Amino acid sequence: MTDTARPTAGAKTDALKLRYGPSAMPAAGPWNATLDVLLGHRSVRGYTSEPVPAGTLETLIAAAQSAATSSNLQTWSVLSVNDAAKRKVLMEVANNQKHITESPIFLCWLADLSRNGRMAEQEGFTLEGLPYIETFLVAAIDAALAAQNAVVAAESLGLHTVYIGALRNDPERVAKLLELPPGVVCVFGLCVGHARAETKSEVKPRLPQSAILFHERYDTSGEAEKRRAYDAEMTAFSKRHEMSQYTWTERVKSRLGPLKGMSGRHKLKAALRSLGFPLS
Amino acid sequence: MTDTARPTAGAKTDALKLRYGPSAMPAAGPWNATLDVLLGHRSVRGYTSEPVPAGTLETLIAAAQSAATSSNLQTWSVLSVNDAAKRKVLMEVANNQKHITESPIFLCWLADLSRNGRMAEQEGFTLEGLPYIETFLVAAIDAALAAQNAVVAAESLGLHTVYIGALRNDPERVAKLLELPPGVVCVFGLCVGHARAETKSEVKPRLPQSAILFHERYDTSGEAEKRRAYDAEMTAFSKRHEMSQYTWTERVKSRLGPLKGMSGRHKLKAALRSLGFPLS
Repeated sequence: MTDTARPTAGAKTDALKLRYGPSAMPAAGPWNATLDVLLGHRSVRGYTSEPVPAGTLETLIAAAQSAATSSNLQTWSVLSVNDAAKRKVLMEVANNQKHITESPIFLCWLADLSRNGRMAEQEGFTLEGLPYIETFLVAAIDAALAAQNAVVAAESLGLHTVYIGALRNDPERVAKLLELPPGVVCVFGLCVGHARAETKSEVKPRLPQSAILFHERYDTSGEAEKRRAYDAEMTAFSKRHEMSQYTWTERVKSRLGPLKGMSGRHKLKAALRSLGFPLS
Repeated sequence: MTDTARPTAGAKTDALKLRYGPSAMPAAGPWNATLDVLLGHRSVRGYTSEPVPAGTLETLIAAAQSAATSSNLQTWSVLSVNDAAKRKVLMEVANNQKHITESPIFLCWLADLSRNGRMAEQEGFTLEGLPYIETFLVAAIDAALAAQNAVVAAESLGLHTVYIGALRNDPERVAKLLELPPGVVCVFGLCVGHARAETKSEVKPRLPQSAILFHERYDTSGEAEKRRAYDAEMTAFSKRHEMSQYTWTERVKSRLGPLKGMSGRHKLKAALRSLGFPLS
């Protein structure tokens, strides 16, 4: 039922080596089994048909609701989709990512200002703060904090996950499919399930801590050199996994360089407005 | 060094009772020690001067970088602030929340499109995707996923935390203080440290799962009744903690009702634009 009780001797060094590569390991301090879970994360894009134990969804949502929420506003909701036809539409929206139709649990995480809006309507007051981009951002951030707790919970239980940001390729189609009222948008999806053996990829290396962690002020010194070292690390990683070899720089270029890399997401502002977020 | 190894017998029921109240406990399934950590979260607003063990910051950041990041873009950074004068300014921005000057670790989480922007400049290509609200949202969400992993890591080590969304009261002052380049904004702060005994509050109840978790389609049935039951739960909670008694409905009304409840955050759009986020 838990893999957090396994011994951690040596696990810290192993975990840091996989995450940063052997030459960029940070001088991390205290460690425990929960950190093994956190450091061991990798996104999994292929699931078996094995169901999850009864009550798993409720466990994950209890973890999600335990995350902080700005001023306890609770401006997020989550929608579980099992219907095969609906899963198929979601897969189409997300550039045909097949795992959306495979995983025993699929969750749509919703930035949701409508619940508080209905409250105000029922009680006869006005929420002047609702139309602002700040309030949309609170909802999106709180949905992310909640979802990440669900991910940690799932992975601590030996399950695997992958976020589906590509549901933002067409938020209006998703909203129509899930019958979302105005003031609700699906900010991302999440697959949860048992990984197929061949999809259990290695932990993906990240930029060295010195490239993303600053002290007292923002600092770009040595940044280009750090990026080149990481490019080499990522080339080796992609080589080990028999994908087409690419550097991190090339990856960012293909994703953010030409507008077509955004798969329609450059239209997000118009979509949000049509879904009831004025973004004032 | 770890509190995740403690036995969990009975812990599940206790944790769910505190989080939902005795009458709204969900039928949660599998459980483990990491779930005890997740369910046990409460925001702490008062810290002792006790330092954290050496390497704690690096451990938290390793956890943060292990969270998923959209297309591995890594569009977030984090800035540790120890300088007392800078902490004081951050406290002022955040409605004088004194814990910002107390906690041994204070982190500013940054949505950061500038690093990828500098990469493109150095390598002589253009990132057409950078100016879009979608890309800002990716950065903010990825910062949130990362920060939540750091929070879970800290709490698994027996430390406490509180997010400081109020740094968005004046993002331009924060950016100037921390010397952020264009394309970087602090989306929230985070205190990490040892709770003062008197600030260890009880776990705060949340809305029942049936009010925020939907199946196949969005569903508002019975919503007003669920809210009233939760209002009663929150009144009892605030009574136990000798704060002024309020319902959840009253709390939301005071925070989002009049514009002054936003403490300047209704100007976020203009601030983001001035910081180099066109929000196209």
